[in-house]
Amino acid sequence: MNNKILKEKLRDDAGFGSKTTNSNIRLVLPNGNFNVKKLNQSWISKLNIYHRLVTVRLWVLMIIILIYYFSANLFFGTIYFYLDKPALTGIVYGDDIEKFWECFFFSAQTITTLGYGKIAPEGTPANIISAIESLLGLLTFSIVTGVLYGRFSNPSPKLRFSKNGVIAPYLDGKGLMFRIANEKDNQLINVEVKIIFSRNEEKNGQLTRAYYILDLERSKVTYFALSWTLVHPITEESPLWGENEKSLTDSTGEFLISFQGINDTNGEMVYLRKSFLYSEILWNKKFVNVINSDNNTYVIDLDRLDEIEHS
Amino acid sequence: MNNKILKEKLRDDAGFGSKTTNSNIRLVLPNGNFNVKKLNQSWISKLNIYHRLVTVRLWVLMIIILIYYFSANLFFGTIYFYLDKPALTGIVYGDDIEKFWECFFFSAQTITTLGYGKIAPEGTPANIISAIESLLGLLTFSIVTGVLYGRFSNPSPKLRFSKNGVIAPYLDGKGLMFRIANEKDNQLINVEVKIIFSRNEEKNGQLTRAYYILDLERSKVTYFALSWTLVHPITEESPLWGENEKSLTDSTGEFLISFQGINDTNGEMVYLRKSFLYSEILWNKKFVNVINSDNNTYVIDLDRLDEIEHS
Amino acid sequence: MNNKILKEKLRDDAGFGSKTTNSNIRLVLPNGNFNVKKLNQSWISKLNIYHRLVTVRLWVLMIIILIYYFSANLFFGTIYFYLDKPALTGIVYGDDIEKFWECFFFSAQTITTLGYGKIAPEGTPANIISAIESLLGLLTFSIVTGVLYGRFSNPSPKLRFSKNGVIAPYLDGKGLMFRIANEKDNQLINVEVKIIFSRNEEKNGQLTRAYYILDLERSKVTYFALSWTLVHPITEESPLWGENEKSLTDSTGEFLISFQGINDTNGEMVYLRKSFLYSEILWNKKFVNVINSDNNTYVIDLDRLDEIEHS
Amino acid sequence: MNNKILKEKLRDDAGFGSKTTNSNIRLVLPNGNFNVKKLNQSWISKLNIYHRLVTVRLWVLMIIILIYYFSANLFFGTIYFYLDKPALTGIVYGDDIEKFWECFFFSAQTITTLGYGKIAPEGTPANIISAIESLLGLLTFSIVTGVLYGRFSNPSPKLRFSKNGVIAPYLDGKGLMFRIANEKDNQLINVEVKIIFSRNEEKNGQLTRAYYILDLERSKVTYFALSWTLVHPITEESPLWGENEKSLTDSTGEFLISFQGINDTNGEMVYLRKSFLYSEILWNKKFVNVINSDNNTYVIDLDRLDEIEHS
Repeated sequence: MNNKILKEKLRDDAGFGSKTTNSNIRLVLPNGNFNVKKLNQSWISKLNIYHRLVTVRLWVLMIIILIYYFSANLFFGTIYFYLDKPALTGIVYGDDIEKFWECFFFSAQTITTLGYGKIAPEGTPANIISAIESLLGLLTFSIVTGVLYGRFSNPSPKLRFSKNGVIAPYLDGKGLMFRIANEKDNQLINVEVKIIFSRNEEKNGQLTRAYYILDLERSKVTYFALSWTLVHPITEESPLWGENEKSLTDSTGEFLISFQGINDTNGEMVYLRKSFLYSEILWNKKFVNVINSDNNTYVIDLDRLDEIEHS
Repeated sequence: MNNKILKEKLRDDAGFGSKTTNSNIRLVLPNGNFNVKKLNQSWISKLNIYHRLVTVRLWVLMIIILIYYFSANLFFGTIYFYLDKPALTGIVYGDDIEKFWECFFFSAQTITTLGYGKIAPEGTPANIISAIESLLGLLTFSIVTGVLYGRFSNPSPKLRFSKNGVIAPYLDGKGLMFRIANEKDNQLINVEVKIIFSRNEEKNGQLTRAYYILDLERSKVTYFALSWTLVHPITEESPLWGENEKSLTDSTGEFLISFQGINDTNGEMVYLRKSFLYSEILWNKKFVNVINSDNNTYVIDLDRLDEIEHS
Repeated sequence: MNNKILKEKLRDDAGFGSKTTNSNIRLVLPNGNFNVKKLNQSWISKLNIYHRLVTVRLWVLMIIILIYYFSANLFFGTIYFYLDKPALTGIVYGDDIEKFWECFFFSAQTITTLGYGKIAPEGTPANIISAIESLLGLLTFSIVTGVLYGRFSNPSPKLRFSKNGVIAPYLDGKGLMFRIANEKDNQLINVEVKIIFSRNEEKNGQLTRAYYILDLERSKVTYFALSWTLVHPITEESPLWGENEKSLTDSTGEFLISFQGINDTNGEMVYLRKSFLYSEILWNKKFVNVINSDNNTYVIDLDRLDEIEHS
Repeated sequence: MNNKILKEKLRDDAGFGSKTTNSNIRLVLPNGNFNVKKLNQSWISKLNIYHRLVTVRLWVLMIIILIYYFSANLFFGTIYFYLDKPALTGIVYGDDIEKFWECFFFSAQTITTLGYGKIAPEGTPANIISAIESLLGLLTFSIVTGVLYGRFSNPSPKLRFSKNGVIAPYLDGKGLMFRIANEKDNQLINVEVKIIFSRNEEKNGQLTRAYYILDLERSKVTYFALSWTLVHPITEESPLWGENEKSLTDSTGEFLISFQGINDTNGEMVYLRKSFLYSEILWNKKFVNVINSDNNTYVIDLDRLDEIEHS
């Protein structure tokens, strides 16, 4: 019995388990997100507002902020509009539409704590509303500006992966290679990479999903300054030994790359994931060199990161 | 002697010591907090405002903010009200109650730095008060909005534990199992779990509290994407070997689960604790499967996380 | 030669080196700060404003903020006062002193971006000054409120050490013991402690400072829920073996305790240091028990943390 | 084959690879930045605004903020100026230049949410513009003040390296030494240092770049309180064994020092890099002592950190 347990313990598992054997489904999406849907989340978990605001594209966030600003002013403006007459002083009563817009803009001046005061609340009801609105403005805009600054100050680093992996000549044999580079000028240090290979395997006539941590030529570097070619030497110990393009396709092989390092700009850890499917591996190809030197500086050409040597 | 010291060193101890043997008291509350009360804390340690504001439920925090806002305005409004006559210009003197409310709302316009200016301070005393109030407003609302944004941006992840642990068939023998899932859509990575088992033991006729770190089939996963069944194989080396429902109850066994991982949304570590008492372990039950696939995605049904197979 | 290098490598060194042998000087002050003065720091390093603002006592910080607020308004108020006549509208010209105070308070309304507008700048010079002042207000108050929130949200945890260490009976022999407790209710987890012992030693007729990492019965605990008695068993391998009160005094022994753990409230690491001099060790004393249980909760009496058993 | 792979795996590599052999180019600039230029970055990666704002000198940041403030007001001021007549009330129409400046300063009062209100928007177009401007002000100034506070609260620690490294007598042989000190008064703890030595080597008639992690007498210290002399003993195992000033120059040797530690003020990790070229190593020199004691305190003289003993 202990033997079986030991085997189970030694069996590697990226956290997906061995039963997820539907061979047509990839585990990790190309953008690094898990390919998972959850049923019966509580609505607050489903909403997950902060996560969304931080991961949404910038222009979408801008539109959300504008919609919030507009709706809040619409809401409070309407209240001021329908309050009994002496609610706001300073309004030049034109027709109702003009008056409504003055209420609307008074709301904008209140929620931002701008408070010109040309228009001002008069009487208890309008004063209560504007006191609440200015508090609400302080509280909500602290969240809005916090999210904005958070995104600005801790952006996901632009790591560039080669579009494909290649199986290329390596020393006396072959190696699986991916290439990465940091697109930005901030310094990434103490970088560590892990590649998990996953494929379907038949075991006692049953299809199970197997996982292997691929042994890398180098899995840690102190400085990630130039481009880095990740190399898994395909030795006899490698699960890729004897594998070919067809067998990899048949077993629906998937390569999960985890990247972590320290962003020197703010001293914080950076985590990234990337997944390559069997179809994204090129066989018997070689990456071209992307590093040159020029005028006492090393030069790396990011556009050639994906480039394959003509053979 | 060295022998005794070595034994003492090897003896595991979750940090509760061996003397806390009152068998009816659990060490960790179901919500993960330590079951401890402290006497003679300094009042500032007792108050521990930040900790409270961050851990209190959201609607309680909202009420606290409203009470602070109201009280501060009551306080400053009263001062403006009782200052000598030409304290505030722009007030339309009605009766005292109306006048008081105008002072109150002027205070609100000052503490939020809204400052319409329809009502404005006149004379040195009122000016001094409003200068202090606006400074106070800046300082206190920076804390209030900071707490709010802090809660918003770093919420405790909604980790869902199965309501019970089970002792289920595992390989050729049995295993103790708990099941967890991440209720939200953010990605948890590099996750690590530790289970400490604690029970009363008689030693030389004396009851002491013993602690064991349970050996897990898998205690780390790179990706925590689906649900995860924590398994402790009950081998001969396990402190649970030979244990049954009655003996576990008699020894008031408690299982302390520590969970840590990286929240990919902000790159920060997440720590969680959970405790299961002997009475929350189901014997000879099995969890049902919760993972399916649908339309090229894995699907996990959170509502079935607790579900036990009918036997 | 290699032998000498190896010995040098194995020699422990807390980072103070072996030459700092002036036997009357302690390495670490009781509050945990290094006992070091630096000559020829650049003035900006010497000032080290942030470090000071964060470590200064709260009421001192408050006074610094008030002084800044007052000085800034004095400065800008004076400028408005001396600007050519139509600088500020809305001022009710009384005598010069009254006028000056109106300028002063106008400055306060500007630097906080309160802006009632009863008094407002008129003409280009006053407008330029007030535009600069409001920008300055935004920038400086962001730092002031940031420091305040930073202190509030990440306060140094109130860890309480026993006033003295004791040499007490331990198992069959003796042990050096210190006792600590967390004064607050937040949970500290994954706590780690290291004790470095330093004393003067004669080597080849020369006095050098020696350092030893003391072997602890337990140096890590998962949960730091109750009080914790740090125990160094005085075995034959211990540098304290054979040491007595007189010899410890003669060698000016010092115990440096490093504490680190995770503050569960915000998930951040906490680091603390504490130093005990030879004179703060009590020989042949025992700490009294501080942990009891009451009504289904453990109870720890912080005031008895230092208490010694009457023998 | 396995042999070759093993050799490749064991070969150390700071992350620069072995092909970057242009012997005249240093890998790391004296300030710690990588000596690398990137071609074909996307413009947003190239811009890398946050990284620039955080690393730029303070007075440059101040000028950037002033330019932003001025430009924004110029932009919005111009719009208010050209809007149809009743755009702003409260303007004392002088000539066009005076009117323009009033529009400009009204913009300043709006973007900072100061809002005196003496001048106020009138009519829908001006109200729309000012509502947008105040929102923009809130959003952009949150970023500006965030960057400012971020720089203030997490400044790169002022670590001072000796201007040169020395090859000095060490025990019975020689050692390569660098000296460092913390210029500020904050406490750095759990400090770790790594020195990578890189030089050109001929291998099978081809010039390749070789990397060695230098073995240090001490690479970690618990407290970094005084100055610290990093020592690499030049034993037979050292790549520097047999090296002399000329051979080091010929091989264009470079020493890359990585420093990391915990800044006790905020509990955050600090990372620093420094590079020394062959020409910055002094042969057969010794650092003078910089640590003294005075009045119960250790004293370290930062200005003598670089000083060499006269021989």
